[in-house]
Amino acid sequence: MKLLRFGPAGRERTGLLDAAGQVRDLGEHVPALAGQAVSLDALERLRAIDPDSLPVVADPGRIGSCLASVPNFYCIGLNYAKHAAESGLAVPAHPVVFNKATSCLSGPDDDVVIPRGSEKSDWEVELGVIIGRDTLYVSEEDALSHVAGYCTINDLSERTFQIERSGQWVKGKSAPTFGPIGPWFVTADEVPDPQALRVTLDLNGTRVQDETTADMIFSVAQIVSHLSQFMKLVPGDIISTGTPSGVGMGMSPQRFLKPGDVMEIEVQGLGRQRQTAVASA
Amino acid sequence: MKLLRFGPAGRERTGLLDAAGQVRDLGEHVPALAGQAVSLDALERLRAIDPDSLPVVADPGRIGSCLASVPNFYCIGLNYAKHAAESGLAVPAHPVVFNKATSCLSGPDDDVVIPRGSEKSDWEVELGVIIGRDTLYVSEEDALSHVAGYCTINDLSERTFQIERSGQWVKGKSAPTFGPIGPWFVTADEVPDPQALRVTLDLNGTRVQDETTADMIFSVAQIVSHLSQFMKLVPGDIISTGTPSGVGMGMSPQRFLKPGDVMEIEVQGLGRQRQTAVASA
Repeated sequence: MKLLRFGPAGRERTGLLDAAGQVRDLGEHVPALAGQAVSLDALERLRAIDPDSLPVVADPGRIGSCLASVPNFYCIGLNYAKHAAESGLAVPAHPVVFNKATSCLSGPDDDVVIPRGSEKSDWEVELGVIIGRDTLYVSEEDALSHVAGYCTINDLSERTFQIERSGQWVKGKSAPTFGPIGPWFVTADEVPDPQALRVTLDLNGTRVQDETTADMIFSVAQIVSHLSQFMKLVPGDIISTGTPSGVGMGMSPQRFLKPGDVMEIEVQGLGRQRQTAVASA
Repeated sequence: MKLLRFGPAGRERTGLLDAAGQVRDLGEHVPALAGQAVSLDALERLRAIDPDSLPVVADPGRIGSCLASVPNFYCIGLNYAKHAAESGLAVPAHPVVFNKATSCLSGPDDDVVIPRGSEKSDWEVELGVIIGRDTLYVSEEDALSHVAGYCTINDLSERTFQIERSGQWVKGKSAPTFGPIGPWFVTADEVPDPQALRVTLDLNGTRVQDETTADMIFSVAQIVSHLSQFMKLVPGDIISTGTPSGVGMGMSPQRFLKPGDVMEIEVQGLGRQRQTAVASA
């Protein structure tokens, strides 16, 4: 299934993308697509609904973030070797994990607001993993059975805030609109191999990021298993799995977001995003 | 007001501690004490209720975490000079911020489970701040008007996970039961000066942490203002404001939690916690 949220910000309804590419209204069944509503059990119940029985939404309008909220927004750092190299950092021995503020969630095509005082706002296309059940001390072998689905993510990052404000990356990862997720929450059954997805980002029409998830240092299964040794993952948690090379910080000279810049983003099979950078009010 | 949650884990009801120290049942008014239910507006509506009109709970039993869930669990690192020194780290130029997984929330007197593989589980008594309204780009002068209330927190920490697992502290801060909060959510009007609270922790009856919030490097107002430059804080977010000196990592020789150890914790006016450390299942 491809699930989505459509409508004005703050008033989205839940939808299902049917086989013909039409949006069907799931709002009566799923008031808020988040938390227990995206558990594997809840998704199994949704699967029993005949899409043809759901009203067609003629004009869905704006697409919102593919989850209404998240209990935790985890990210993995330095998970592609070429990106670690362009960042001037060693390949880590274990997955590097940090958080984004959950208030950064944004629609896939919403404007990205460059925060006040920012000089180094940067892009990072990533494969997002959505957790489907309570997950603690899970093995790598069992890890993918805890995944509800996947989505496209832009892990927007302010490098000065991230690196030069007394440590811990959350400060540079969390501004409002710094977490576009979606357009779709694609259930795991539609992604037979999460390590075989092309990941691309075009800046103003020029391709700047282009690798595949086969290039990850730590696989999705390894990441889920590793995190579950330290914390209980819960339904609706999102894990952004790291970005390939080609971010602005890695360019020579460095190149950061300016108002008017357009980012076009895709993770193969998970849908496209298109954001315009704008100045903070 | 002093708000609390009582009852078996996962089935808590919301309560109000009245002037006589009795628990009154607020469950009909506040099904879940979290998020918008602790916004300043919602608290103002609660204040209009006559406590005498609420049923007395004769035997509240277990006390749960003083919030049912949190959108974000932020922490400030190295915010007392003597603790930075005992950690062998410099006093930071800006507040150091990191996250705990929101799934670590625990009741004030629940057992603390030492996670699998842990050799260095440690205690940290802290003043907790609960946010009451959307907070972005707020000044230090206005910051306290965004605070809904305060609570006692034990920011439990696994030092090996925190420091020796490829960076970013969330790994060592997030195990289940590593976030006891409460017993009470004390509304801000009852805490005229958050920088004048004694903060203590006794380990097996011996006092090991004992400073006051006057010793903080960055005040609550500075912390809230600073964070709001990087992320939008939202109602129900919790910020743990750093621990005084006297953690196990800073002792000579170092001393970490063993099954059977008892931690007794207090932030002046916010209530006491008492936890026993137990081994992981």
